[in-house]
Amino acid sequence: MGVDYRVTSCPDGLITDRRRKVQVLDCTIRDGGICNNWYFDHKLVNKTFEALAESGVDYMEVGYRTKPGAFDRDKVGPWRFCDEDELEKVVRPGKIKLSTMVDIGRVTTAEIPKKSDSVIDVVRVATYAHLMDEAETIVKHSLDCGYEVFLNVMAISTVSIELLDETLERVARLKPHRLALVDSFGALFPYHVRYLVRKYKNVVGDDVSVGVHFHNNQQQAFANSIVAIDEGADFVDGTIHGIGRGAGNCPIELLLFYLDNPKYNVRPILDLVDDFATLRDELRWGYHLPYAITGYHNVHPRGGIQLMETPDRYKCRSFYENLAEEFSRKST
Amino acid sequence: MGVDYRVTSCPDGLITDRRRKVQVLDCTIRDGGICNNWYFDHKLVNKTFEALAESGVDYMEVGYRTKPGAFDRDKVGPWRFCDEDELEKVVRPGKIKLSTMVDIGRVTTAEIPKKSDSVIDVVRVATYAHLMDEAETIVKHSLDCGYEVFLNVMAISTVSIELLDETLERVARLKPHRLALVDSFGALFPYHVRYLVRKYKNVVGDDVSVGVHFHNNQQQAFANSIVAIDEGADFVDGTIHGIGRGAGNCPIELLLFYLDNPKYNVRPILDLVDDFATLRDELRWGYHLPYAITGYHNVHPRGGIQLMETPDRYKCRSFYENLAEEFSRKST
Repeated sequence: MGVDYRVTSCPDGLITDRRRKVQVLDCTIRDGGICNNWYFDHKLVNKTFEALAESGVDYMEVGYRTKPGAFDRDKVGPWRFCDEDELEKVVRPGKIKLSTMVDIGRVTTAEIPKKSDSVIDVVRVATYAHLMDEAETIVKHSLDCGYEVFLNVMAISTVSIELLDETLERVARLKPHRLALVDSFGALFPYHVRYLVRKYKNVVGDDVSVGVHFHNNQQQAFANSIVAIDEGADFVDGTIHGIGRGAGNCPIELLLFYLDNPKYNVRPILDLVDDFATLRDELRWGYHLPYAITGYHNVHPRGGIQLMETPDRYKCRSFYENLAEEFSRKST
Repeated sequence: MGVDYRVTSCPDGLITDRRRKVQVLDCTIRDGGICNNWYFDHKLVNKTFEALAESGVDYMEVGYRTKPGAFDRDKVGPWRFCDEDELEKVVRPGKIKLSTMVDIGRVTTAEIPKKSDSVIDVVRVATYAHLMDEAETIVKHSLDCGYEVFLNVMAISTVSIELLDETLERVARLKPHRLALVDSFGALFPYHVRYLVRKYKNVVGDDVSVGVHFHNNQQQAFANSIVAIDEGADFVDGTIHGIGRGAGNCPIELLLFYLDNPKYNVRPILDLVDDFATLRDELRWGYHLPYAITGYHNVHPRGGIQLMETPDRYKCRSFYENLAEEFSRKST
């Protein structure tokens, strides 16, 4: 072997330095649950928990908390609700920090108990930029309840720069512990991410740490994570084998290889690849043209997800042409 | 929609400019043939030719030329040999420039006829850095025969910087028309690619145009192509649906979306996705852990390919551990 490209040849010495400092959040069960309506069996969730805890990954997001009536309990699995008694069957407190997400519009303060009454450490609030009023209420309540509070402002690729600046300024005043740059549509390229991570960090200030959550529609989730780390992102989201809505997320195993940080151990996660590869054959996340086409056009993946559920999933020329036409109409 | 992330928000105006200038080479049948021993039927090769010609892609690489005895003709398909009579069944001259690759060690000058006796426009010579003497003979012969001559120096991630410099200086003197930076093992990240494209262009001079050929083991093939274009690469290789050895190559459809160049039309290629997605289910290129693990360790994918051929393909912890151990032995 000539050059060790794992650790040398890096023209910017900072990359190595920064990749040793970033933290990792796994959202396999939460974002992956969007693929199977959160019907992961308890055994697999427990196995995932044990593997992540052993790997040294910093956070595990086990699902959503949801207000009554937002979903039919007969049509989704337990990780859409994350009731305390269900959580206690699969996790043990203290081995890894545990997060549940709450969706603005599908949660009230009633679903967020005092931290002392929960195994959960983190409430992660998912909002759109135009729903920040309601998000503020939930963030403040969660802070009052004693949680670490993270905020995800979703679908950032559709937000105007003016609204983004205004939102970031609100976040700077609100002071959740962490804020994630979220590319829900898988529309961003590394040069966008460099610009946005810089902007996020500059505007929210030192009290709010900045992380990233990427989707893989155009095979950029891991590459975008790399430049985000290079720009000083404080945490990165990943999932086992890249499971997640549509094309999925950044594969956490690639991330742990890359970070090359002795505090992480990728081996227990490799033990889970077999389980998740079998699931992938069934649930079809990953690189598929319908998702690439929605990502490229910067729209929600739902049209791609619908097409993927049909036997004509790869007959995608007309799917492309319809989106392209809509796109040029909007642009003119 | 807020921001059009397809064309705006680019902090470096050059990116847009450069992506309108780069040329595209498709090597679906050549590199994809490594997955199925070049057993593509004539109908699919012809359909691929027609689609690529209509798309405006600059070059189509239809296979290899190979000396007698290097492969058993009963065990590989026709595109490992690219006899003129086979080519004439599937392509028509003039619609798109046609390339065949020749592998140093598996070719002699006898397999390269005068250009006037062939439908082929380009001879692409694939060599390792340590076989440059033999490569020079074949490059010179091909130039004398009247072809456009491209040179691929493979597995560059294993070549010492000293040998790389020496090789690039030889290429500068040899003056093939084009030289490709080839990441055979899928080991490179975008910051390596920036450094290497700059070096290649600086050393080979203006007479040799520089392009890139990436493998997707760590989901970096498209991201690496993007930075290569940003650094001024003159051409980029891609394949339909990313087909290629191991994890495969940069998907040409993602590349054409990204280039956003009116001279290209992605639609005819989208018509082929159905055929190639069916092949992918069978041949299993794309993101699979065994390939990610060889890429990360900067070794040839053959161990991953062997593992992928077994039912235990995703039981990859011990595969990882063996390579990791070998890697640390070599590094110390």
